Amino acid sequence: MSFAELWAEIAPIGLTDKGYLRYALGEAELVLRDWFRNQAFRRDMTVTEDGNGNLFAWCGEPWADGVVLTGSHFDSVPYGGGYDGPLGIVSAFLAVDRLPPGRNVAVVAFCEEEGGRFGVPCLGSRLLTGAIPVDRAAALCDRDGITFGQALGGRPTGERALNKVRAVVELHIEQGRALEVPVGVAGAIWPHGRWRLDFRGSADHAGTTRMADRRDPMLTYAYTVLAANKEARLSGAHATMGRVSVEPNATNAIPSLVTGWLDARAADESTLDALVAAVTKRAEDRAGRDGTEVSVTAESVTAEVAFDSPLALRLSAILDGAPILPTGAGHDAGVLSAHVPTAMLFVRNPTGVSHSPAEHATDADCEAGVDALAAVLEELTRAPAAEELT
Amino acid sequence: MSFAELWAEIAPIGLTDKGYLRYALGEAELVLRDWFRNQAFRRDMTVTEDGNGNLFAWCGEPWADGVVLTGSHFDSVPYGGGYDGPLGIVSAFLAVDRLPPGRNVAVVAFCEEEGGRFGVPCLGSRLLTGAIPVDRAAALCDRDGITFGQALGGRPTGERALNKVRAVVELHIEQGRALEVPVGVAGAIWPHGRWRLDFRGSADHAGTTRMADRRDPMLTYAYTVLAANKEARLSGAHATMGRVSVEPNATNAIPSLVTGWLDARAADESTLDALVAAVTKRAEDRAGRDGTEVSVTAESVTAEVAFDSPLALRLSAILDGAPILPTGAGHDAGVLSAHVPTAMLFVRNPTGVSHSPAEHATDADCEAGVDALAAVLEELTRAPAAEELT
Repeated sequence: MSFAELWAEIAPIGLTDKGYLRYALGEAELVLRDWFRNQAFRRDMTVTEDGNGNLFAWCGEPWADGVVLTGSHFDSVPYGGGYDGPLGIVSAFLAVDRLPPGRNVAVVAFCEEEGGRFGVPCLGSRLLTGAIPVDRAAALCDRDGITFGQALGGRPTGERALNKVRAVVELHIEQGRALEVPVGVAGAIWPHGRWRLDFRGSADHAGTTRMADRRDPMLTYAYTVLAANKEARLSGAHATMGRVSVEPNATNAIPSLVTGWLDARAADESTLDALVAAVTKRAEDRAGRDGTEVSVTAESVTAEVAFDSPLALRLSAILDGAPILPTGAGHDAGVLSAHVPTAMLFVRNPTGVSHSPAEHATDADCEAGVDALAAVLEELTRAPAAEELT
Repeated sequence: MSFAELWAEIAPIGLTDKGYLRYALGEAELVLRDWFRNQAFRRDMTVTEDGNGNLFAWCGEPWADGVVLTGSHFDSVPYGGGYDGPLGIVSAFLAVDRLPPGRNVAVVAFCEEEGGRFGVPCLGSRLLTGAIPVDRAAALCDRDGITFGQALGGRPTGERALNKVRAVVELHIEQGRALEVPVGVAGAIWPHGRWRLDFRGSADHAGTTRMADRRDPMLTYAYTVLAANKEARLSGAHATMGRVSVEPNATNAIPSLVTGWLDARAADESTLDALVAAVTKRAEDRAGRDGTEVSVTAESVTAEVAFDSPLALRLSAILDGAPILPTGAGHDAGVLSAHVPTAMLFVRNPTGVSHSPAEHATDADCEAGVDALAAVLEELTRAPAAEELT
């Protein structure tokens, strides 16, 4: 089966006129999970869930010793693209088709990778590896007040031993413009995190309150947005404030509360720490002048991930010297890499656009990605024992 | 009946832990409308609706020649105060109680004064006076996609002749800190309006997109917020950007669209025009540097309202020289003043806070407001013909 044929099955699911809306455990993502089960059924694979929202399709016995996991996630950012995540799952099923029979491999769909619904990215893989307490994950709320535990239908089961997993390989669309050939191998993930900034002022009437009497937190927010951009440019890092929430959010009222989120990433941790400290300092200084208050809360911070280096070199060799490149994007593979030899393959993104409906990869590059993933899995699932792997 | 007794009946309606939520034709406001009907019933007043969402309680025949209207509105801004609007209705019923029998007076509750639900303030009085086309009003949408026509239960009936109305008097809490005695009289309403600013850029991945490659409309928005504040201060006007909407509004995505609303007011129209032009110019300049686009749309613009000056002087005289003061806030009385001799009474606001749950007036000042309104109505509804009124 060609990539384009299988891809066409999922392309319409969750597509709105503004882009893909595939929230974890939301309507479209549940349809994609059914599609996953159906793919497994067609291939005589056994489907299990792990109690954390992650879905597995096993060629052999579930959790058999030495299994190689491959896959990605179905969920999208709100109004995002169709490739970020699903490409790794579709490619995984197609790569399995190209393996000799009897290989110990499983396809996985991780839950809530984007954090678009419950706020913490890689939630499924964090639970699986014990990187987030079960109670904290269960209590995370979406914008409608539904908790992750409610959406999941129960308390997550949390960490499980991964010592039987020989390796994890996640294929993903590349998200910058860093790849000039169809397929590359991940070297490292930049340290990155999300910080919530609450700016508090005083609600008041927009028409009657003298400018000098105001304590308007929108001003402090606006200044901080510009400061974050400037500080990131100065330090060669990335800073984005793309999400905001306002109370009461009325045209004729000065806000009482503006909440902004800072997404910050840098090539190393000291640069990232310095960036967040500088943005915080400038927000606090401005709050002093605006008569407002600001508090900064880290919602998730991920240290630098250096993928298993011998494994990356081996994959590059299998793929005739495919380039090894770093990325600013977080991935489930990054979370798993602390526990299991883990690697990522990237498929070329000609425009570099991601988290947008304009995200795109060519069918030819995606087909090359499937071939590369099949070649890698063929090697990794061959007879030799785990210690020879890397 | 004392002010405090009647006030206590409505104080809990629509009160949430963040302030009052009394959207026009929403749950709490419908309860307040029932309370209004009940008050009319207790006083043998006849209740009618005008097909535009406005509610009337008549002491005599509906729309009898020479009637004096008094009242205000029930709806609040989201999470606003309890006095802005309802004070004028509660005071109207209490003032009617203090009039000699047989006076030709009616209490009115206007619909959607704040524009908090359907976006156009003074919607009920604009319809009644023909200041907004019926079809445009019917099609206005709230944030859930419900139109005003749907909420009303049919197409508004629109303009009606107001030539039988002798005068309109609206009592309202003052909203700055302009009043140092319990009661004052309105002189004029500043020209004011609402402009929607759409900032368009390119959605992209927050982690992987190089800073130099971004077209981030949040930056242009933030710059414009600060520019509006600065321009208003420079020109002695008021500018507020208290409402914002973002797409996709995700922490890890650069937005594709940021929509901000500018509320601007000034003592005269040339200052207001210059302010809006300056903000627009600065937004456009910055958009050029950010690689984004901005478009500015006037959603509602209200010219300066000078209330009937002889009537204001007469009220001030009735009230022993109560001060006459301008205001930056729009009111239904301002809309009606183009058609009928119209006046406003203000009740002192000790902190100046409005459009906030902290909005407050003392019971003693509110009681003084009722006395003042009763004295004014007593004069205005006395025998002499309309032409002697002013």
